[in-house]
Amino acid sequence: MVIDLNADLGEGFGIWRLGDDLALLDIVTSANVACGFHAGDPVTIRRTCAAAVDRGVTIGAQVSYHDLAHFGRREMDVEPEELCAEVLYQIAAVDGIARAMGGRVSYVKPHGALYNRVYRDEMQATAVVNAVADYDPSLSVVTLPGSAVHAAAAAVGVSTVSEAFADRAYTPQGTLVARGKPGAVIHDPAEVVARACQMAIEGSVTAVDGSSLSISARTICIHGDTPGAVRLAKEVQNALLAAGVVLQAFT
Amino acid sequence: MVIDLNADLGEGFGIWRLGDDLALLDIVTSANVACGFHAGDPVTIRRTCAAAVDRGVTIGAQVSYHDLAHFGRREMDVEPEELCAEVLYQIAAVDGIARAMGGRVSYVKPHGALYNRVYRDEMQATAVVNAVADYDPSLSVVTLPGSAVHAAAAAVGVSTVSEAFADRAYTPQGTLVARGKPGAVIHDPAEVVARACQMAIEGSVTAVDGSSLSISARTICIHGDTPGAVRLAKEVQNALLAAGVVLQAFT
Amino acid sequence: MVIDLNADLGEGFGIWRLGDDLALLDIVTSANVACGFHAGDPVTIRRTCAAAVDRGVTIGAQVSYHDLAHFGRREMDVEPEELCAEVLYQIAAVDGIARAMGGRVSYVKPHGALYNRVYRDEMQATAVVNAVADYDPSLSVVTLPGSAVHAAAAAVGVSTVSEAFADRAYTPQGTLVARGKPGAVIHDPAEVVARACQMAIEGSVTAVDGSSLSISARTICIHGDTPGAVRLAKEVQNALLAAGVVLQAFT
Amino acid sequence: MVIDLNADLGEGFGIWRLGDDLALLDIVTSANVACGFHAGDPVTIRRTCAAAVDRGVTIGAQVSYHDLAHFGRREMDVEPEELCAEVLYQIAAVDGIARAMGGRVSYVKPHGALYNRVYRDEMQATAVVNAVADYDPSLSVVTLPGSAVHAAAAAVGVSTVSEAFADRAYTPQGTLVARGKPGAVIHDPAEVVARACQMAIEGSVTAVDGSSLSISARTICIHGDTPGAVRLAKEVQNALLAAGVVLQAFT
Repeated sequence: MVIDLNADLGEGFGIWRLGDDLALLDIVTSANVACGFHAGDPVTIRRTCAAAVDRGVTIGAQVSYHDLAHFGRREMDVEPEELCAEVLYQIAAVDGIARAMGGRVSYVKPHGALYNRVYRDEMQATAVVNAVADYDPSLSVVTLPGSAVHAAAAAVGVSTVSEAFADRAYTPQGTLVARGKPGAVIHDPAEVVARACQMAIEGSVTAVDGSSLSISARTICIHGDTPGAVRLAKEVQNALLAAGVVLQAFT
Repeated sequence: MVIDLNADLGEGFGIWRLGDDLALLDIVTSANVACGFHAGDPVTIRRTCAAAVDRGVTIGAQVSYHDLAHFGRREMDVEPEELCAEVLYQIAAVDGIARAMGGRVSYVKPHGALYNRVYRDEMQATAVVNAVADYDPSLSVVTLPGSAVHAAAAAVGVSTVSEAFADRAYTPQGTLVARGKPGAVIHDPAEVVARACQMAIEGSVTAVDGSSLSISARTICIHGDTPGAVRLAKEVQNALLAAGVVLQAFT
Repeated sequence: MVIDLNADLGEGFGIWRLGDDLALLDIVTSANVACGFHAGDPVTIRRTCAAAVDRGVTIGAQVSYHDLAHFGRREMDVEPEELCAEVLYQIAAVDGIARAMGGRVSYVKPHGALYNRVYRDEMQATAVVNAVADYDPSLSVVTLPGSAVHAAAAAVGVSTVSEAFADRAYTPQGTLVARGKPGAVIHDPAEVVARACQMAIEGSVTAVDGSSLSISARTICIHGDTPGAVRLAKEVQNALLAAGVVLQAFT
Repeated sequence: MVIDLNADLGEGFGIWRLGDDLALLDIVTSANVACGFHAGDPVTIRRTCAAAVDRGVTIGAQVSYHDLAHFGRREMDVEPEELCAEVLYQIAAVDGIARAMGGRVSYVKPHGALYNRVYRDEMQATAVVNAVADYDPSLSVVTLPGSAVHAAAAAVGVSTVSEAFADRAYTPQGTLVARGKPGAVIHDPAEVVARACQMAIEGSVTAVDGSSLSISARTICIHGDTPGAVRLAKEVQNALLAAGVVLQAFT
């Protein structure tokens, strides 16, 4: 029983801060570092990478649409050539900084609206995967099981890592209940902890209709930007460790 | 007699174009590729790097202040930690794209107001050089002879490359006459060509007071964004070749 | 027989230029001034407004998604509150500059992807119209006949102005043939001129299947950013005048 | 004894927040609303203006250099034409939104590095003042006594309002001790409250050498973005009211 905990980090910009990066870095095994397109200025990227290296936390590039004004949360129609170049630029920038700090980028995780879009949009999924393959085909891409990214990655020999969300409701088909729908986000800390353990130990999750879904996640996403997020993350970590789960990066 | 010709390239942004990149790439031996901070979106960077690799032109990262609105032409007071991280980010982004295209960044040249500032500002010069040293100490930095960059680079073991400007007037002290002063920019094509040859062959330039200055430039900057720029660059190239000068990148 | 000719103007940004604003201002009767979100820095806005006032050309605010990197050409999912505030901000900025130059904003025209989106998206159409109503309900909105903007504007008492495109193919249903489809853009100058005259004089256009569509446009859009654009615009203007059409702004 | 309390408000951007705007709006009599150039997206501007109008707080445009990445804290060399147009754009955008919310911009206060620069730089001071005069010469400009803004404003008939800082140390010459120097910022709440009262009631401040300076401030700046800022602002408000000072906007 081995699982990775990942969280979005370095999501400040200039004077603005978001979340408690250092506290989360003491909990997670993988750090999705913002690359400057939805958040993350160069100083923040550098500090976040340095702190991750200090703690032995694996670094990933959290690539995004170019949208500081809306935190990468607006879905966009982007030409594949543009999206591919934008993702390549972001991976390269963060990897270069990570290397200067003694680490490196080991994986890529799309952020926000791009994460959602490449779940279903083959063209954009292919553009993201091509950027990874162009930069370093040994990097893996974090995505939901069943996403368009899986097929696109398989086609060019890039590996993917399946992710689960302990605080999100699942449909019987194994997709996430859309944000905005009732019950989409699970707020009860005890339930989030229980779901994380079920995901890591039993490889399953209970869908909204009560059915049990098999789910083979290698990493669980921890949200860090809400009040109480760090405490909840700590509880998830403690529960997993108490159950004998090994917390370990997937790379 | 060996000299390098360098020009700023990839300085479009989104829909906007500047200069004739492909024509210049057929003339220069070193391409200063804009990194996205004063110009240069990811698609443009990628295309410019690919075209440079195709032609065997050496690629440099043309790093800048973060100032798209004013093309990096506003001098800024920036904290060294910020400037260092910003320069590191830019080098990494362009180097990663260049490598994906089969090339690599071989040198760094500050752009516009940053170029002028690090001529005299030790703190900012040190920040730029530290970013180079952090990323890859084998990269060289292009700068004017006598600049603060030389001392800063020497202190950390980074090499510098001396640059000359065939179309700029020099003071008897060997500095450039400030833009805006009368005669600062030489517009007569024949004179520009003659000065380039004098720089490359005799290692000297005639200052505004008529005195002859010794100048040991390894690279001459070609401006590409003015009307007639490509034709003038071609004339400089032809005159140097006709005089038996070898045009060769410095790296 | 009265028609307005409108064109997008002031679409440079910083050092970058696009189109020949002054030449177009001698032809059009309405100037869609870029507001800074897809193009148009404050100096450019100011100069464009001043030149329009000098020539008696009516000024409109060419509002857009916040997307300098892609010239407002990426469709975006934007929350109505955000879109409304963004449009309001843009109208206010350009109107304030126009007034300082002795003019004023008289109408609003969405740009690029926003123009296309509000043709069919009621929520975004309502957000744009609400911004207009919040700022000044006497402003009119330029849109295609049959667009969602018409209904949204009618609901709050904002007037709309119907637009036609002389260089775009029409479906038998009266919508534009999508860019990218064969024949979507008409490149033959003589045909563009003929269609403009037919639109202004007969109030009709020939669809791609050869059928004749009734079209009650009060303004015809002139594209200015392609080679030969100014010459073609001049030919359209001359042909309309020769046919006795009065060229006059709609406000 | 009448004094105004002003604070910087609406300084979030997109997802990021800064300070407790609503709490401060219950204390201050004038709100310096960020205009989008160093902070402040359109939704934030709109909400801040609406909340200020609700509370009867006077609205000012907090104009800045174009520098989101560094919160307008980098001094820049800007051409006067550019700076004037940028300031005009910002005033117009916020005034338009304020009017849509039932209020209006009544004054202009430069932010951060621009505030410091126009204290001593006549050219930039003139550019800022000209923008105010172009937009609406009845607006006043908030500035330090003795600044270059005073002279520039007087020359074009724009009025100025003198500002004091209760939490900043003063030199015997009446200028602020530069940030970064020891003792530049006063952290003891009781001392800040006492200084605010002395400024409002006696029209004086004690300089760092112990001498008493006459200071005729009509407004005192309250900082809102530090921990404990709101509580300190409340204490200043209470102490002034208890001493019989009337808190009233200057417009």
